[in-house]
Amino acid sequence: MIISMRLGATQKEIDHVCERLQEFGYKAHPIFGVERVVIGAVGSGENKEQAMESIEAAPGVDSVVAISHPFKFVSREGRAEKSVIRVNGHGIGGNEFIVFAGPCSVESESQLLETAEAVHKAGAHILRGGAFKPRTSPYDFQGLEEEGLKLLRKAKERTGLAVCTEVMSASEVDLVAEYADILQVGARNMQNFNLLKRLGKTQRPVMLKRGMSSTIKEFLLSAEYIVTSGNPNVFLCERGIRTFETYTRNTLDLSAVPVLEELTHLPIIVDPSHATGKRSLVPAMSRASVAAGADGLMVEVHPNPEKAFSDGPQSLRPADFAKLMQELRPYIDLWKVARTAAQRPALVRNA
Amino acid sequence: MIISMRLGATQKEIDHVCERLQEFGYKAHPIFGVERVVIGAVGSGENKEQAMESIEAAPGVDSVVAISHPFKFVSREGRAEKSVIRVNGHGIGGNEFIVFAGPCSVESESQLLETAEAVHKAGAHILRGGAFKPRTSPYDFQGLEEEGLKLLRKAKERTGLAVCTEVMSASEVDLVAEYADILQVGARNMQNFNLLKRLGKTQRPVMLKRGMSSTIKEFLLSAEYIVTSGNPNVFLCERGIRTFETYTRNTLDLSAVPVLEELTHLPIIVDPSHATGKRSLVPAMSRASVAAGADGLMVEVHPNPEKAFSDGPQSLRPADFAKLMQELRPYIDLWKVARTAAQRPALVRNA
Amino acid sequence: MIISMRLGATQKEIDHVCERLQEFGYKAHPIFGVERVVIGAVGSGENKEQAMESIEAAPGVDSVVAISHPFKFVSREGRAEKSVIRVNGHGIGGNEFIVFAGPCSVESESQLLETAEAVHKAGAHILRGGAFKPRTSPYDFQGLEEEGLKLLRKAKERTGLAVCTEVMSASEVDLVAEYADILQVGARNMQNFNLLKRLGKTQRPVMLKRGMSSTIKEFLLSAEYIVTSGNPNVFLCERGIRTFETYTRNTLDLSAVPVLEELTHLPIIVDPSHATGKRSLVPAMSRASVAAGADGLMVEVHPNPEKAFSDGPQSLRPADFAKLMQELRPYIDLWKVARTAAQRPALVRNA
Amino acid sequence: MIISMRLGATQKEIDHVCERLQEFGYKAHPIFGVERVVIGAVGSGENKEQAMESIEAAPGVDSVVAISHPFKFVSREGRAEKSVIRVNGHGIGGNEFIVFAGPCSVESESQLLETAEAVHKAGAHILRGGAFKPRTSPYDFQGLEEEGLKLLRKAKERTGLAVCTEVMSASEVDLVAEYADILQVGARNMQNFNLLKRLGKTQRPVMLKRGMSSTIKEFLLSAEYIVTSGNPNVFLCERGIRTFETYTRNTLDLSAVPVLEELTHLPIIVDPSHATGKRSLVPAMSRASVAAGADGLMVEVHPNPEKAFSDGPQSLRPADFAKLMQELRPYIDLWKVARTAAQRPALVRNA
Repeated sequence: MIISMRLGATQKEIDHVCERLQEFGYKAHPIFGVERVVIGAVGSGENKEQAMESIEAAPGVDSVVAISHPFKFVSREGRAEKSVIRVNGHGIGGNEFIVFAGPCSVESESQLLETAEAVHKAGAHILRGGAFKPRTSPYDFQGLEEEGLKLLRKAKERTGLAVCTEVMSASEVDLVAEYADILQVGARNMQNFNLLKRLGKTQRPVMLKRGMSSTIKEFLLSAEYIVTSGNPNVFLCERGIRTFETYTRNTLDLSAVPVLEELTHLPIIVDPSHATGKRSLVPAMSRASVAAGADGLMVEVHPNPEKAFSDGPQSLRPADFAKLMQELRPYIDLWKVARTAAQRPALVRNA
Repeated sequence: MIISMRLGATQKEIDHVCERLQEFGYKAHPIFGVERVVIGAVGSGENKEQAMESIEAAPGVDSVVAISHPFKFVSREGRAEKSVIRVNGHGIGGNEFIVFAGPCSVESESQLLETAEAVHKAGAHILRGGAFKPRTSPYDFQGLEEEGLKLLRKAKERTGLAVCTEVMSASEVDLVAEYADILQVGARNMQNFNLLKRLGKTQRPVMLKRGMSSTIKEFLLSAEYIVTSGNPNVFLCERGIRTFETYTRNTLDLSAVPVLEELTHLPIIVDPSHATGKRSLVPAMSRASVAAGADGLMVEVHPNPEKAFSDGPQSLRPADFAKLMQELRPYIDLWKVARTAAQRPALVRNA
Repeated sequence: MIISMRLGATQKEIDHVCERLQEFGYKAHPIFGVERVVIGAVGSGENKEQAMESIEAAPGVDSVVAISHPFKFVSREGRAEKSVIRVNGHGIGGNEFIVFAGPCSVESESQLLETAEAVHKAGAHILRGGAFKPRTSPYDFQGLEEEGLKLLRKAKERTGLAVCTEVMSASEVDLVAEYADILQVGARNMQNFNLLKRLGKTQRPVMLKRGMSSTIKEFLLSAEYIVTSGNPNVFLCERGIRTFETYTRNTLDLSAVPVLEELTHLPIIVDPSHATGKRSLVPAMSRASVAAGADGLMVEVHPNPEKAFSDGPQSLRPADFAKLMQELRPYIDLWKVARTAAQRPALVRNA
Repeated sequence: MIISMRLGATQKEIDHVCERLQEFGYKAHPIFGVERVVIGAVGSGENKEQAMESIEAAPGVDSVVAISHPFKFVSREGRAEKSVIRVNGHGIGGNEFIVFAGPCSVESESQLLETAEAVHKAGAHILRGGAFKPRTSPYDFQGLEEEGLKLLRKAKERTGLAVCTEVMSASEVDLVAEYADILQVGARNMQNFNLLKRLGKTQRPVMLKRGMSSTIKEFLLSAEYIVTSGNPNVFLCERGIRTFETYTRNTLDLSAVPVLEELTHLPIIVDPSHATGKRSLVPAMSRASVAAGADGLMVEVHPNPEKAFSDGPQSLRPADFAKLMQELRPYIDLWKVARTAAQRPALVRNA
């Protein structure tokens, strides 16, 4: 870490910081500049965040900046090859572009089965659908819960599609894991640390959605929670961030795809349905996601969006989805060529 | 709700929307404008959010806007008198300005008792301190857990101060409620709906902190979750929102205080420590919070900020805190005059 | 517009609002709901914004919502066919994907000519380069000014590429227009209304960049300023918006491309260089921009980014750019197929 | 500045960065850490921003962080005493709390004179009022221009109040300076660098409003533009920033007041009218501004807000304003005590 002292900091203050750094296991390198003193700290202390805050609170200190990334296990610096998460014969993060599709909420047997069959036929690989629903208002539909999980299993038996569904708290992990192939952590739970730690105790693949106002760094630290707790089968989902723009439900941060490709070996998929909140914008952002090099796509589909219990305005009809899948084909072909050419897409880095 | 049809929407589409509105229990009032048709929907359907999404997904619809607030029990429209939450002889939301103070984390017996005695002596009413800690990184100090709760009880016995501490998941509510006078929901859990519902099953006062990127409306809907689940003893805490500005840790949205004063009867306190992240900014924002009409203040205090396990840079030393309390006195006197004059501070509304 | 009255608004207040609406040329339609009264206002008053603010300031009014878009000339509602801006034999917004490339700043004859020749050879259509530079700090390079304009003309003569360069104030429009084929309005000047009005007095094509914190609506209103002042030759450029995320320089709002495709007939290009601020992210976001349906791309290229006077970290080297152009080819081929199939890309709207 | 090299950067890359640093006039101090190499650069090169970008673009470099503030003349590090801007017998930044009041736009002689007399009587020190108006929509009222300036002079003659009014472009500076005591730079023009440089050529006091999405650093760099161009008579105005919250027009960043108190010697006033956009929120945020230690306040007042040409919903009526001034009195008394006690309010810094 780099410590910048205040203008006019005393020698005593500088010495004190150097001593504190040593206590935390760092070697201190003070640099006496024209205006002020800067101290470089070298080492790999255990409690880096705590050390940084401590030093920042010391007398005469102006600011403290970290040098290395705070995440280790999910960092690409430590592991160049991309992780491939195996689910039901597919490999997320490998040379196959994976499409997740299905309704926002599981509402009824007929609704779910009709959707599952349609998305299967159109070429989706994984069925999504919520049984436990985090809803902003207590007056909204809260999900069919276990009944919904049973319907998801039925849909899997019928179509062969693996199932991805949300789990909202640590105490429900076992129940949901009984039915689901992939456990989804929703945006609102990205920093529900009890849940993350509990998911580290399973080996079931986990899809971690980015929080609405989460930085890339916080996103990766949440993934790190799961991985350090014991479960390496994690992949990420960009689903839009909150900004001042209100025309779209959120702002899809598509550049997070190449950024995460640089920073982590975990796969990353994109959810253009939640990101935009508008059905008409989903096709363009789906094409863009493939072209940006995402590992997959998650799209909401409902047989009758107008009667959906949630997210109707952003859900595609089965026919729209089939058309989209066809439209995506040549883009996915280009994606495959790039993916096969390089183990990872060539990056024009500063070197 | 108000439905705005697309330019060129057909009569059939308009009729369909009117029929759908009736199905949801609304009476439809189409207005034929120069350019487009707008439909006013009158009624009080059960599933308003679902109705709105449904209608938005109907053919020919451009947008749907809600008219009434989506929250009912916490709204000031339904109840003009302010709620007063009774804790240990104090009334939050009443005619006493309530000060919460204490360390970010409970770290040890001596650290906690020293702080508790100091803040008590300086005039604080409630002791804050975290035993279960939500930390962004898995490598950070995660709290003393039950051991920390026991120390909080000890501090209460010693000083007589009521205790406010965070609860991070539904399954820990009973344990924390055994020790705490006030159950705190942290910013990261503001939309942990399982936790909110569970807190509705106790009668223990709940302090709900605003999520980092939560709108006022979402904030109040989360409070509504607790209240509709059975617990009316809720108060709010503004602790800064996430913006593009990085000089401060968050951006304190102090105007949320008079806004919430208009919208809800729930009390609202301010946490300038987390909002600013810098010790030097806490006094100014504390004075401003009193002047803005908040019901109280939550301030982080640590006997040795430099050795704090968390949040050292924003923690006041006991002597700083005592000085702040003295500095606040005349502002609190003015606050009391205003509070006593009107049951609620006079608002210059549009009437 | 729709006026929502406060709960408990009096009949007198309602009548007053209706009278005020009539004064502004609207017909009022009050709807008496269960909880409150809502008034629909039909008409097409001259001073709509002023009328809205006036009504919002009237006693008993809770909120006022606009129904129709505030922009008229640039709206797609009034004109379905896309505008095509002709420049030097190319048509921006037509069936050709237009690539703008060049250095951030014009620095010297050799730097500019070398770049111009390289991007021309690689297939760019238009040369970009700043002679007047808006720089955040007064200590940064401020541009070669007229000298830079002369170099741009020389580069045009050498390569045949049309020239796009920024104009920073109304008083410089004539000078810049003498040399440039396209007048660029930078993000910081998107609401420099004097400049916008002055640009409306030329017929020279104008590229309007989106302001860092501009909503889509404000973006289109700024375009409307130019068009209503007399110059219909305007196209838009999405270049990233300011959010809380700091890993990238800005957050590229790529969904603005299909959104603007729905809302306006003006062409829209994307600048992934300023949006990301990092050379390594430009290729992925360029591919994504083509796939999202943008009308073109603006990319920064410098013969020696390390020695650039500005924006080195985000500038591609000529060889990188040539490689990117090759990589984009199949994506542009798909773009052309879609463009030719429909006059505009098929939108899955709510109908 | 501090340069952090990539993991695995070669010795050649490290040497190259050190050489480049020397070229820019810095002395390089490489620190070889456990994981990576960090280079401290000491010196005070002329073109620091350019040097930073250059180095960031060099092979093997991961990131570059500045140590010293990029602004010099406005920095408090270089000058501890606060600037006091003299206007019409008052000293902004001194021991008097200065109140600016008046209508958003100058609309007519009677409207302006009535307002001017009312705010004068209530105790305001400076009359505000816009003659040149930057409006988001071309269909909004654009101001009375020179006619408005003449009315402002008339109001000054009548009341003795100094006049503060906006200037929108460099070419209008002379005209506006003929009539105005204070030249206002609006939020949309905070980075209109031609205007800033031109204002540096006058000695007339300048009020610089913070841009809607401007960081504190950018705000101070814009002030630096004016000061380095020759005019030291600058003061700042916080008027709310753009965030995701839409209940208020902007989000008042009140913590900017103590932050700027630390960073700069320039005075800072607060505009709660534009920040909140709602009349009912102005009193609370005015009290809070005084308590936070601002040097003054700018409040919009209109004799008949409902008939205002702009900003009616946020304008106080003369009677509201008089009541507010009375309500502020005891807060201003406390402010004066603090101001007189210390040349500057005591800051609880990290020392």
